[in-house]
Order: sequence, then structure tokens, then C-alpha cells
Amino acid sequence: MRADIITIGDEILIGQVVDTNATYLGKILNNIGVEVRQIHSISDNKEAILNAFTTAQDQVDLVVMTGGLGPTKDDITKHTLCAYFDDTLTFFPDVMAHIEELFRKYVKAPVNALNRSQAMLPSSCTQLFNAHGTAMGMWMQKGETVFVSLPGVPFEMKHLVQEKMIPLLKATFSLPVRVHKTMMTYGLGESIIAEKISDWESALPQHIKLAYLPNLGRVRLRLSAKGTDAVQLNSEIKTLFDALYPIIGAHITGFESEQPIEMQIGNTLVKHKWTLATAESCTGGKLASIFTKNAGASTFFKGSIVSYSNDVKRTVLGVSQDKINRFSVVSEEVALAMAKGVIRQTGADVAIATTGNFGPKKGDSDAEIGTVVIAIITPNINYVETFCFGKHRERNLHKTTNKALELLHNKLVSEL
Amino acid sequence: MRADIITIGDEILIGQVVDTNATYLGKILNNIGVEVRQIHSISDNKEAILNAFTTAQDQVDLVVMTGGLGPTKDDITKHTLCAYFDDTLTFFPDVMAHIEELFRKYVKAPVNALNRSQAMLPSSCTQLFNAHGTAMGMWMQKGETVFVSLPGVPFEMKHLVQEKMIPLLKATFSLPVRVHKTMMTYGLGESIIAEKISDWESALPQHIKLAYLPNLGRVRLRLSAKGTDAVQLNSEIKTLFDALYPIIGAHITGFESEQPIEMQIGNTLVKHKWTLATAESCTGGKLASIFTKNAGASTFFKGSIVSYSNDVKRTVLGVSQDKINRFSVVSEEVALAMAKGVIRQTGADVAIATTGNFGPKKGDSDAEIGTVVIAIITPNINYVETFCFGKHRERNLHKTTNKALELLHNKLVSEL
Repeated sequence: MRADIITIGDEILIGQVVDTNATYLGKILNNIGVEVRQIHSISDNKEAILNAFTTAQDQVDLVVMTGGLGPTKDDITKHTLCAYFDDTLTFFPDVMAHIEELFRKYVKAPVNALNRSQAMLPSSCTQLFNAHGTAMGMWMQKGETVFVSLPGVPFEMKHLVQEKMIPLLKATFSLPVRVHKTMMTYGLGESIIAEKISDWESALPQHIKLAYLPNLGRVRLRLSAKGTDAVQLNSEIKTLFDALYPIIGAHITGFESEQPIEMQIGNTLVKHKWTLATAESCTGGKLASIFTKNAGASTFFKGSIVSYSNDVKRTVLGVSQDKINRFSVVSEEVALAMAKGVIRQTGADVAIATTGNFGPKKGDSDAEIGTVVIAIITPNINYVETFCFGKHRERNLHKTTNKALELLHNKLVSEL
Repeated sequence: MRADIITIGDEILIGQVVDTNATYLGKILNNIGVEVRQIHSISDNKEAILNAFTTAQDQVDLVVMTGGLGPTKDDITKHTLCAYFDDTLTFFPDVMAHIEELFRKYVKAPVNALNRSQAMLPSSCTQLFNAHGTAMGMWMQKGETVFVSLPGVPFEMKHLVQEKMIPLLKATFSLPVRVHKTMMTYGLGESIIAEKISDWESALPQHIKLAYLPNLGRVRLRLSAKGTDAVQLNSEIKTLFDALYPIIGAHITGFESEQPIEMQIGNTLVKHKWTLATAESCTGGKLASIFTKNAGASTFFKGSIVSYSNDVKRTVLGVSQDKINRFSVVSEEVALAMAKGVIRQTGADVAIATTGNFGPKKGDSDAEIGTVVIAIITPNINYVETFCFGKHRERNLHKTTNKALELLHNKLVSEL
């Protein structure tokens, strides 16, 4: 079963918003065994939308589109659906009642003509009821192809996908099985890995595909299998990945899991009965925000002291001015002192500290731009390492947080 | 002048990576006056790529594609370009020398056959030299349409766009002028605004287009103008936006600028000669990371105390247990005490504090899920406000950081 995703909106084409809806839909469709042929981002424009429909018609089984369902004049998806399906808009009283209810509860303003227009849907559509908003989803069919139209607001779109679209797809189509698994490697370039595993790669069966995903010091290897039996596909993928350990085992750090690395760290901390705090200079709170964006972080995360200025390193973290003068603020001595300081202040058992110079200009220290020191303290070890990451501020932030999480993860696992 | 963007890679279609390359290219092309007709994300698959080329041929003046230029077997863009242009791959000695140089410096491993293959390019292409990587960009022309192929690694792609593609585009095409400006409004829904400004909207001239961009409590209004004279278009847009103040002025907070709101805050702080610190419970370091991701934040940002646990609120921020017991940890009293605590600890002049319950479960407090308190202290004011944002953790984080930045911005500007 194949699908096209169509995302509608000039804001995507002019780069004003990142198209995370397409990413979400791609992931969800793949998870239920639908192969996405293409993602098509187009203008709020009748001709462009009709053209995308025509391109998809009979080439794919399913077209999922988002956007253009708002109440205003630039929202034309419904009118275009009517044109394509030779249909007209009809008044849906249950939708109107729902809109009035939402206005009573949240808007505290009378329903106006524009909102009333949101209760008009193509007469032949199956309505996908949007409990969280005023723009309904729609399910329509032409020939062998199903067209699903969803609102562009991510939160409402996701709700409709989970509650309405997926159950209807499962009821309508017999879905094949697709399995993806991604191995994480650190420390070897893409071409070096490819050379080492070349025989292995050439021997992959037809229904299993390999992709290399290189990014800032790590390469992910993804195997994608197509078939009818998930258990068997998973077992085939496991056997194939197992065969990589004798070849590149030293560089394999595990698999990309549903659980992000920071929550794997959290679980390991809970096993140790330890808590965590961060002392952040160059990462400026990013590590703390990575941990705390997850529900459940409060079971292991105590807090962070972001010591962006040297004052705060001295007064809050207790790093001595003498140490800063002797070793420089970007030094292993200062990083360790910061980690100790945040443990003292917060009572955490484990700390991670970062200090560095991300650029573009040199800061308070003489350290070369791109120099970063990461310290990790646990009840058993004091660990510190210096890195040279390069001259690009944004990349340095990502490389440092990736590296800090990787180091902490590996230290904690090795101590279990 | 019109363009298609093609992003190549299964990782986009299965939702494993967000397609930020397309966003970047959309923004850049718009800035130089190229209208993006569509973004087409497709599989690493010869047929799909050829199909995208054919769809674009003669419909647009420019096709910019990213991805599929790596050294491994799943990278087939170059071979597909050869097929489409009826060309063959040729060895480029200067590219080989550059690859060898990069390996000597950074990889410390011998160049292998796969890397050598990256020195093979279509014989008729204009090479776009990639100083930062081994995958060269390529510029080719068929009929009236120019095809530009760029590597998918964002950092290398951006470098080639800025240094090579844009100068060549400006030299090759006579580019029209496009101007976009986006007004920010808070506190009115999309349909209410649309109703209020309906006469204004209907009177917009043909060459200026309006879009509504609603998101979590704010609606952005974007005007896009097409023409030949940027000064005149800017002046027309200014006149149009000015006419909105008498209608919805109380809800207009300004314009989306090249400078993000956190750096506007930074500039205002510098004018005041004030420094900033944050005390974060529910936002968990997110506010600090928003400020510190920008170069230059050290001129006004002292640091942050992320007090995710109540311990840290007590011991580091000095919030009394008695206050927490009496008012609850999610209370205006505790938020103000946190702000005062971080000022005392860091010596900052201005502080912002957050405490709340983002869900999905109730935490240490009895506060309803979605309850958030934001406190702002400056040398002149103590301000605190309680919000009810709803039940969705991820949205609550965004709503809280948006609201905190908006409040701080407005308070600081009103004190100037």
C-alpha cells in the first residue's frame, strides 16, 4: 500500500515554518505498513492542489493532506475538494453545534459567519470529527484512491490521525508489515563503515534495505524490511545486525529506541538509585531542557545551575577565582570544580558539567573556538575530557550535548 | 522566476528526520526573489528522482535538490543526473586532491575506493566546490531549466548555497523582488481577526497577499508582495499594516523580525544596563537555552538555576518550606520567591521565574495540570501572573516559554 502526503501552505514554501506535519505523518504511516511514495508541499492555490491530486490519483492508494481548512479566505482546501470530486458544500448541524460549544467554553465571543462556514463540508465526505478544534477532517474516495484532508494545526492533526484516520485505514485496507531498526555507531566515517561492511551489505536479501544516516560524529545504520510477518522480519533484522558486531563492534553503541538517550540515562540512574544535576556554561541550559522535556524526569533530575557568567561559576558553584586564573575558564580543572559545585548545591549523586567556547568570537578564555570540556562525576568516578569541535556555534552546541549524553550514558551503563 | 525544491532520502519519507533543508532553501530562495512552486520529498530511487526532474522540466526555471551524494551504495543522485542529462561520470583531479587533504587532516585513515568515487562527477556539470566536505555540488542545465544538486548534510548544503549557488543565480538570472512582513498579534482567534479586518483584506491590491498563521495563543499576519522595487513594496506594506492599528491595535505586539524575541529582550536589557537570570522549575532550562543559543547572550545573561526538585528551590533559591507548604509549590508566592532567590544568587538585575504543572500527571502540587505561574522582577517592578494552559505537556512548555518571553519583552519595553 502506497501513500502521498500533501502539505498545503505558502508558509512552508517560503521557509517560515518547518514542515513537522509531514515528518509525523511519514512516521505514523510507516509504522502501520504504508509506504510513503512522496511528500508534496504546495501553495494554498487551487491549481497546485488539483495538480497534486491528479499526480496522486491511481498512482497511490492513499493521499493524506494537511492544511488550508481554517475559516479565512486563504483556506481553500474544501473548495478544491469539491471541485475535484464534483461535489458541493453542505451544512453539517452536528459540526455547527460543536463549534458553538467550543466558542461558549473557550472563546467567549459570538460565532461569526467565518466560523459558521467551517460547518460546511463536501456532501459526500465521511466526516472525521475533530473534538479539539473547529476544522473537521474529511475522508473521500475517487477510483481506488482514498483522500484524507486534515487540519494543519499539529495538535489537532495528530488527534485526528490517532483517533480517526488510523482506525479507518485499518478497517478499510489490508496493511502489509514493515519493520525498521536503526543501529547507532560512533567514531567511524560513513565511507569507512561502508568499506568494512561491504560484503555484509552485498549479501542483504532483496526485501531488506540498508541506509546510512551520518550526522556530527555518529553514523546510524537503518535496516528496513518489508513482508507479512513482523516477528520473522524482526528476527531477520536481528540476525543481520548481530553479524556486524565482529566487524565494527567497538563502534556500535546500541540501537535507536523509542526511548531517547536521555530517558535511557534516566532509567539507568533510577537503577543505581542516583539523582542527576547539570552545571552548564557553554550548553547554557540545553542539557537540563533535554532531560526535563520528558514526563517523568523528576524521578531522577534535581536541577541545573547554568553558570553563563564567571560570577555565577564563583558565587553559586564555588569555583575559585584562583582556579579560573591558573587554568582558564575552559579547563578540565574548572569543569570538575563546576560538577562538584552543583553536587554540593543540589545534593545530586551524579553531575555533568560543560565549559567551552562555541564561537563565533573568543570569550572570557584563551581557548580556541570549538574547545569544549565535559566533566562527569558519579559516586565512583571523576571523569573529564577535552574536545575540539570546530568553528560553528550551532553545531558545537549539538556536538557537545550529543557527546555529553553519550559519555554519561556509557559511564552509567559501565558502572551497573 | 520559479523553483522546485527536491529533497531526496527515505529517512524523510519514513519520518526519521525533519526536512529542515527544504525550510532553509525555501527561505533563502524567497529572500532573493525566487518563488518556490513546490517542495518534493522523494525516495533514494532512480525512477522517483527522474520523475521529479520531468515534473519540473520547463515548468520552473530552477530545480534545487539535496541529498544522495554520499559515498555509499544508497546514494544515487549523480548516476541519475547522468541518466537524465545523457552524460557520464568523469574523474575530477582537483576534487580528489581536496578529498585526500580532508582525510589527512581529519580522518587519519587512507582514502578508500568509495571516497575516490566522490571525485567522479558528470562531465558537463559546473562544479560547486564544497570546501567543508567530500560531496561536491553540481550545476547543470537542460532546456531553460537549471538543476542544482547539493549534499544533504545541512552544514555543507548551507555553505554551498551561500558561497556558490546564490552568486551563480544572481549572475545567471535577473531576479524579481519579493517582500514579506509578518505582524504578531496575541489574544484574538483567527476568525475574529478575519471578521474585524474583512474590509481591509478585501481591499488588498492584487500583488499583495495575506496569510493567517495561528499558533498557541497568537496569530501572525503575513503580507507578501511581488514587484520590481523593494523600497516601494516595503512602503506599501507599511501603509497597509498601519491601517490595522485602529482596528486591532490592542492585540498587535509588533513584527516578526530577523532578530528573535529573546535577542530583542537582550538589546532592551543592554539599553537599561541590566543583566538577566532565570529561575526555572517547569520550563526546566528551556528559557536559559533559548537565550544562550544566540551568540552575544553573555552581554546580558548571567545564568539560570533550574530548580526541578523542591530541594533545589529550598537550598539554592532559598524558598522557605513554610511558603511551599502554605501556598503550594505552584503559586505566585513561590514564583516571586524563586525570582528573588536567583537575583540574590547570581547578582542579576532582572529575573524571570516559572513554576507549574505541565502534566501528564499531577506532580508535587495540587495545582491542576496546565497551571503555570510566571514571575518577573526588575529593579522597578515585581510582576506575577497565573495561567491555565491545558493538558498537553509539550504544548504547555511552548506556551509557557512564549508567554514568559512576551511578558518580559513587554515589561522591559514599557519601562524604557
